Amino acid sequence: MSIVAVGTVALDTIETPFGRAENILGGSATYICLAARYFSPEIHLVAVVGTDFPTEHVDLLQSNGVWMDGLERDERGDTFAWEGRYSYDLNDRETLATHLNVLTDFSPHVPVSARASRIVCLGNLDPSTQREALSQLDRPDLVICDTMNYWIERTPESLTATLKLIDCLIINDSEARQLADEPNLIKAASVIRQMGPEILVIKKGEHGALLFTDGSVFSAPAFPLEDIYDPTGAGDTFMGGFAGYLSLSRDYSSDALRKAVVYGSAMASFVVEKFGADRLLELSEDEIDQRVHNFRLLSEIPKIDPLRIL
Amino acid sequence: MSIVAVGTVALDTIETPFGRAENILGGSATYICLAARYFSPEIHLVAVVGTDFPTEHVDLLQSNGVWMDGLERDERGDTFAWEGRYSYDLNDRETLATHLNVLTDFSPHVPVSARASRIVCLGNLDPSTQREALSQLDRPDLVICDTMNYWIERTPESLTATLKLIDCLIINDSEARQLADEPNLIKAASVIRQMGPEILVIKKGEHGALLFTDGSVFSAPAFPLEDIYDPTGAGDTFMGGFAGYLSLSRDYSSDALRKAVVYGSAMASFVVEKFGADRLLELSEDEIDQRVHNFRLLSEIPKIDPLRIL
Repeated sequence: MSIVAVGTVALDTIETPFGRAENILGGSATYICLAARYFSPEIHLVAVVGTDFPTEHVDLLQSNGVWMDGLERDERGDTFAWEGRYSYDLNDRETLATHLNVLTDFSPHVPVSARASRIVCLGNLDPSTQREALSQLDRPDLVICDTMNYWIERTPESLTATLKLIDCLIINDSEARQLADEPNLIKAASVIRQMGPEILVIKKGEHGALLFTDGSVFSAPAFPLEDIYDPTGAGDTFMGGFAGYLSLSRDYSSDALRKAVVYGSAMASFVVEKFGADRLLELSEDEIDQRVHNFRLLSEIPKIDPLRIL
Repeated sequence: MSIVAVGTVALDTIETPFGRAENILGGSATYICLAARYFSPEIHLVAVVGTDFPTEHVDLLQSNGVWMDGLERDERGDTFAWEGRYSYDLNDRETLATHLNVLTDFSPHVPVSARASRIVCLGNLDPSTQREALSQLDRPDLVICDTMNYWIERTPESLTATLKLIDCLIINDSEARQLADEPNLIKAASVIRQMGPEILVIKKGEHGALLFTDGSVFSAPAFPLEDIYDPTGAGDTFMGGFAGYLSLSRDYSSDALRKAVVYGSAMASFVVEKFGADRLLELSEDEIDQRVHNFRLLSEIPKIDPLRIL
């Protein structure tokens, strides 16, 4: 089942306590596609880059199975560039520089080959840009969307309009509280689901993720990683694994969604083990299966008898 | 199987966004005993109160099955009193006043009836007081201990001495990071387990709890509560449910410990539903079984086939 990812392709400069990498391949669409392609043979990328974007990166994505005809090269400027630094505990991220460059005027063009994609991943972008992409798609089965505090604060009306059009929102816990204006996450989830998305995933970083569907909550653990080298892209990789699993299972039941959260979490737990998207270039199916199995061991509650029988 | 809880009995004044309660029955030993008594017919309380302590509270504990011969009444002063306020999101607690009163000179006397208790719960106290209590006990099977940032900062050597004598430490995530001087919780857990306790439980509030035993990590979810009225005593109630379940199962295997974490989490999820310990006075076995069942539903990962088969 085909997937289209609309988002950013970026040149990232990242500093962590473990090292520094300059102008490496990043961006939400990159991470989504490189994770999803383990599950689906047809992943379309829709994004824009500038004149400075190295052709090696295009070749790398293409050779990893990503369909690149939706990548536009804007001759008027440079590629979107982000520079950030992570502190020692890797939970705090400081943005040192954001150069929007060609992203400023980005108007997505979904290529004909991608218009019938069954699953749509909308990476974090201006909500109006997300709607612009959606309008070019031919009745997808499932629209999955990300957003961030910037759009919650600056363009709330536009975000509200986008939320009405999507099936699944994936955001982090602080964004969920802010979007719902409610400190209790469980209440916040109800508020957000009333805004549009029937399915809500709240990512909590080292504390795992919560999945809210009709009448059911699923709490997924985070993988206990001792060494996190670079958290960049973990959220987008989660979306890629989540969408990828659903495209493979062709099933959007509550059980399938739970499994998709586990696959998303597994892919995210891999990507942070190396700088940038490097870890997504080398995984085997066996490694993914093994990690998913370990997620189960991690949260398995042994059979419990009622108190009276004990 | 008998349990002894050494800790505080307090008069708490609590303000939350939902109301205020003055001089209500509190303290670590109180919560531990009122939770554990659902699982064991023999729960001994060892603590001190002052001249102002109402006899109704003693009667209430006694009528709820707690053995009270270890409660000392110190005629030289008032009962330990704590006053605190919770902010709107209930995650931040501000201590308005702490009157140690008779707790200052507390020297625990474990009554003869309690000396052969198989499970010992050491509530948060000066680590030297915890050791003093331990020295009066007759080779218990399992020693479970709590501590807090105050002792980690002020009496690190004494805390180190106590950690060498215990089997299981139950602390929250910020305390674990501080005790191990390590921001990564998984690494912190290894460091702490090398200090003595073979079993480590890290409580993460609304994010659940982690159990570390030999070669295994268990991630337990938090119950998705929409309405938390008063978080006071949740950690001590966790310990009471955890110890209580183990006393009933008479089993300290890794599987039994996982179940104990679920029972501890279930009891903690109840106590926050009302002010103080009120909710612990009215639970039924069916309610506890049902909540434990719901914990399983909350974290259950459906059977997953390897990627190749999908």
